[in-house]
Parts: sequence; structure tokens; C-alpha cells
Amino acid sequence: MEAKQVMVKSVLDAWNARMEAANKLLDSFSDDDLLKEVAPGRNRGIYLVGHLALVHDRMLPLLNLEEQTYAHLEDTFLNKPDKSVSDMPSVKEVRAIWKEVNEKLAKHFASLSTDEWFQKHSAVSAEDFMKEPHRNRLNVVIGRTNHMQYHIGQVALIKK
Amino acid sequence: MEAKQVMVKSVLDAWNARMEAANKLLDSFSDDDLLKEVAPGRNRGIYLVGHLALVHDRMLPLLNLEEQTYAHLEDTFLNKPDKSVSDMPSVKEVRAIWKEVNEKLAKHFASLSTDEWFQKHSAVSAEDFMKEPHRNRLNVVIGRTNHMQYHIGQVALIKK
Repeated sequence: MEAKQVMVKSVLDAWNARMEAANKLLDSFSDDDLLKEVAPGRNRGIYLVGHLALVHDRMLPLLNLEEQTYAHLEDTFLNKPDKSVSDMPSVKEVRAIWKEVNEKLAKHFASLSTDEWFQKHSAVSAEDFMKEPHRNRLNVVIGRTNHMQYHIGQVALIKK
Repeated sequence: MEAKQVMVKSVLDAWNARMEAANKLLDSFSDDDLLKEVAPGRNRGIYLVGHLALVHDRMLPLLNLEEQTYAHLEDTFLNKPDKSVSDMPSVKEVRAIWKEVNEKLAKHFASLSTDEWFQKHSAVSAEDFMKEPHRNRLNVVIGRTNHMQYHIGQVALIKK
């Protein structure tokens, strides 16, 4: 196995393992649990799951895979803090969005070739990518796995 | 820049950026803040920082860099839950251990060559490594960055 393949495996194995653990955690909570704050005065579970789903939805165009689907929910889950919007989707809807977005990513991830993982993402220019070749698709997945972990560690604090 | 170098940069940049953010967060808390639970009935800040410091201390032998220093604190921060041992070090001591361990790692990380990052870690046999070459040093750093994020997201919930 060449170095490129080895690295793609490391990064995708980490993403997949953390995603599996996140799904197991979320499945262990009732819908009512996810309406609780992770700590007094902090974000609710539903907000953090929606926030992660929206960030993952944005990975689709960032990785040049397809258009994002849920731009209309960016105010709710990205631009505005929790408990500041009145028209938040239900927990069931947020669970469905989370599942759908991650399944789209999984399908694309499985189809990319090793070399395609080392291609630039859409937020870096061709010129900058010549100078900074680490700004590739794989780097995005490393960053987003870290981001998911940060918030899933918080969701794990919700009392059942 | 060849693919191997690109990947080492991605993984170490992520580790360093998350470490810098973690240190900034910890510096923003008083010693008294770190004695608080991150959420009611959950781990205290001091326990999570000690836990991360011990896991990072173990990275030294796992990455074949040097012996670990704080094995005598494994009961306190790894094997037993928070609030179950009476002889916990002070917040100042835990902060010093965290700093020292991470500085050791940083020094070693800066001195490893690109190829050395693709060598096996100490918890995999030479035979298994032939079949699973992704079980290299870089893979350990990917996993430990994710682990740090999980708990730092929790520490961030402490109210100042």
C-alpha cells in the first residue's frame, strides 16, 4: 500500500469510527432528551446535532461533490445562537437531516479515488493550492472530524 | 511537496491548532473554575485536563519517543472516575503536567522526519504492520487530536 492510500485510510477510518460512535450516542437519546441543554444555559442537543448536520451539508460543495441542500437552515443552526429562532425543525426532522447528509457524504467518500482525495477543495484557489497543497479534500475531513468530536463530547453530557 | 509531506503537515497542523486553542481555553479559566464540574454530576475540569495529560504522556512510548513520566497518576486520571480518589494533585500541578507533557511531544514532533511519521507505533507488531501500514505514528496523532477535542468541548462548558 502506498503512502497516499495509507493516509486516506487513516483519515476515513477516523471519520467513520467517530460517525458510528456519534450515531450510537444519538440513537441512545429520546427526542425529549435532545431538547435538553447539554449543561445549564448552554446549547440544546437538537441545536448541536443541527449545527453539525449543517456543517456537514456544507462539506458537499466544499469537497466539490454536490450542492448543499439545507442552506435555508443556516440561520437556525449556524448564524444564530440556540433558542433565538422560533421556527426550529423538530428533533425527528433534525435526525433525518443529519442521517441524510451523512449518507450523502459516505456515498461520495466511498467513490473518490486516492488521488482525488489529494485534489484541492473549493475554498482555495488553484494558485494558492500550488503553494499550499495540504489544503486538499482530506484536510477538510480531518478538520471536520475534530469539529464533530468537540460537539459530540458536549452532547454526551445530556442526562437521560 | 510530495504526498507524504503534505499529509504530515495536515495532521500536525490540526494537532497544533487544536492544542493552541485548548491552551487558550485553559488559560482563560481560574484554578477555581477548573475545580467545577463541566455539567451537573459530570467530570470536573481538573479531571479532564489530567486525563488528557495522562493520555498524551502515554503517547511518548506509543510513538517510540521516550518513556512515560506519570504512570503513577494513571489510577487518578485514567483508571478511576473523577471524585473517587482523595490524593488528586492541585490544579496548578495538573496544569504543569499538561504543559510539560505537551512540550515534550512538540519537541519530538518537530524532530521526526517525514518517513519516520510513517513508521509503526509501539502497540502494533511488525507482522501486523506489514498488513496494516496505516497503524503508523501519524494515525496515533489523528486519533489523539479527536480525543482531545471530545473532552475540550466539554471543558469549554464550565461557567466562569
